[in-house]
Amino acid sequence: MNFEYVTTVVTLAAFVAIPCAAEDVLPSWNDGLAKTAILEFVAAVTDESGGEYVEPSERIAVFDNDGTLWVEYPMYTQALFAFDRVKQLAPQHPEWKTQQPFKGVLEDDMKAVGASGMKGLMEIIMATHSGMTAAEFEQEASDWLATTKQPRFKRLYSELIYQPQLELLAYLRTKGFKTFIVSGGGVAFMRLMTERAYGIPRDQVVGSSVVSEYEVQDGKPVVVRKPEMNFIDDKAGKPVGIYQHIGRRPILAFGNSDGDMEMIEFTTAGKGRRLGLFVHHTDAEREYAYDRRGHVGRLDTSLDRADEMGWIIVSMKDDWKTVFPNR
Amino acid sequence: MNFEYVTTVVTLAAFVAIPCAAEDVLPSWNDGLAKTAILEFVAAVTDESGGEYVEPSERIAVFDNDGTLWVEYPMYTQALFAFDRVKQLAPQHPEWKTQQPFKGVLEDDMKAVGASGMKGLMEIIMATHSGMTAAEFEQEASDWLATTKQPRFKRLYSELIYQPQLELLAYLRTKGFKTFIVSGGGVAFMRLMTERAYGIPRDQVVGSSVVSEYEVQDGKPVVVRKPEMNFIDDKAGKPVGIYQHIGRRPILAFGNSDGDMEMIEFTTAGKGRRLGLFVHHTDAEREYAYDRRGHVGRLDTSLDRADEMGWIIVSMKDDWKTVFPNR
Repeated sequence: MNFEYVTTVVTLAAFVAIPCAAEDVLPSWNDGLAKTAILEFVAAVTDESGGEYVEPSERIAVFDNDGTLWVEYPMYTQALFAFDRVKQLAPQHPEWKTQQPFKGVLEDDMKAVGASGMKGLMEIIMATHSGMTAAEFEQEASDWLATTKQPRFKRLYSELIYQPQLELLAYLRTKGFKTFIVSGGGVAFMRLMTERAYGIPRDQVVGSSVVSEYEVQDGKPVVVRKPEMNFIDDKAGKPVGIYQHIGRRPILAFGNSDGDMEMIEFTTAGKGRRLGLFVHHTDAEREYAYDRRGHVGRLDTSLDRADEMGWIIVSMKDDWKTVFPNR
Repeated sequence: MNFEYVTTVVTLAAFVAIPCAAEDVLPSWNDGLAKTAILEFVAAVTDESGGEYVEPSERIAVFDNDGTLWVEYPMYTQALFAFDRVKQLAPQHPEWKTQQPFKGVLEDDMKAVGASGMKGLMEIIMATHSGMTAAEFEQEASDWLATTKQPRFKRLYSELIYQPQLELLAYLRTKGFKTFIVSGGGVAFMRLMTERAYGIPRDQVVGSSVVSEYEVQDGKPVVVRKPEMNFIDDKAGKPVGIYQHIGRRPILAFGNSDGDMEMIEFTTAGKGRRLGLFVHHTDAEREYAYDRRGHVGRLDTSLDRADEMGWIIVSMKDDWKTVFPNR
């Protein structure tokens, strides 16, 4: 190997990589407390000569999905997928016509579905997300994601992702962070959109899951999804999911609801510099406005504790210049 | 940005990156069927103009740990750690003096320990791997790994890793593969050595785990390890672990025992080109020789099925030029 060539390449590459001083790495973020907190945090943990430097292998950033990276209002996207599956599977289940919460789904009676509570929602998930192979589920969910549009914005759900967060994810990665999703959604569902939408590979998604089993069916090895919850990645489950899957305490965590509070509490309680942030849905015009009384993504206790804990509340209305990517 | 500079960099970088025709990417592998199978497989799935091309995001390679990447004979390293923990914790457990399998461990009576079977081993694991925080366990296991030497080779266990496999892992990564460990060992134990030893980050380790819970202890958020198995990543559990954690069927799988058979069966049953390999421990002189009657890492049914399934049996004695890295 010719070392002169190598030296030349390294020198020029370093030169080319220096960003122009005027470059805005987060162009869809308005100047303000949140943007400053992010930029200062990243500068501190990547400054080798500073006292708050963090090795690249420890630069773990975790993001909730629903309401933090994509729209969750008025109903979680995965629940809408499950409702559509109930309608699709109804001919094979005549008993659903009279049996809640399925009756409510078939009659678009969301009040009845809501009245069935978490137990009802779990019944719907089990009936629509199991009893099939992993590959069959992937096909069903991929087809739905590729074709179903959100009524208000008339765009695919996988396009209703937040442009400022896409910039933040990309920026963190250029700074040596490894970015993960840690969300209450089903891991097998979320994975189908995270790679293309966020640049987050399938194996960097931590989520809820059903028990699965390996079987050889007609000589073909398959994984089968069973009608039993394996793990619920919400609230106190999130730090556990992080431990089991990632194996390191993150240094940055971003959520939007009380379901993310334990994850952010766990993250910011670590030694050294840490950053915890919540998206606050304050923008009824460009997206939705909900917090303490939201029927999804309730942000209440976390809002009360934010000041004391040093958590950053990111106001969608004030901190984000744009919400969705341009078509 | 000066485009002339950029062009120069790209040109020079491309020039520097072209390997010399004579470069051997797997220098510790002897020429033979196994090495040829690996090189031909990688060439085929990375050749964009060929019919067997695989997108980088799908280039998932999974490796068992014990006996595939590091020594497992005469006893799994993690079991040895557990036995040492039993001795260390014995003063707090006077009842262990008369109670199997603990009595056997304290008296170095491996026959008695073995007679307690899988149930006994689980009791030992539960008693030594739980009832503490994640951070406390990490400290205990890290200290042990940093100081305990294997008696025959007089080296740290984390140094008794296979040089040919280090080369293969590195080679696969240069070819756009993402490398994972999928092993029966405890994920929290394995992670402590995989990054430095193999270049495999903590979150790319799939393993067995205990139930864990999030708690705030004296105001400090911690994850606590409970005395209950969460998941056993062995045999038919391995494809399930792959599904839950990685979310893609691998295209290459490397194991060494019947505990890896389902993982390799699942991998090689996928569409398109696939590669399944087993390390065959045939080298009593440089390492150990065991297979069909091994009390650890039994390789029996897989050996019978290898020909029919197209699985590659890698003979340590014949296929590996060196076994361990030079000091």
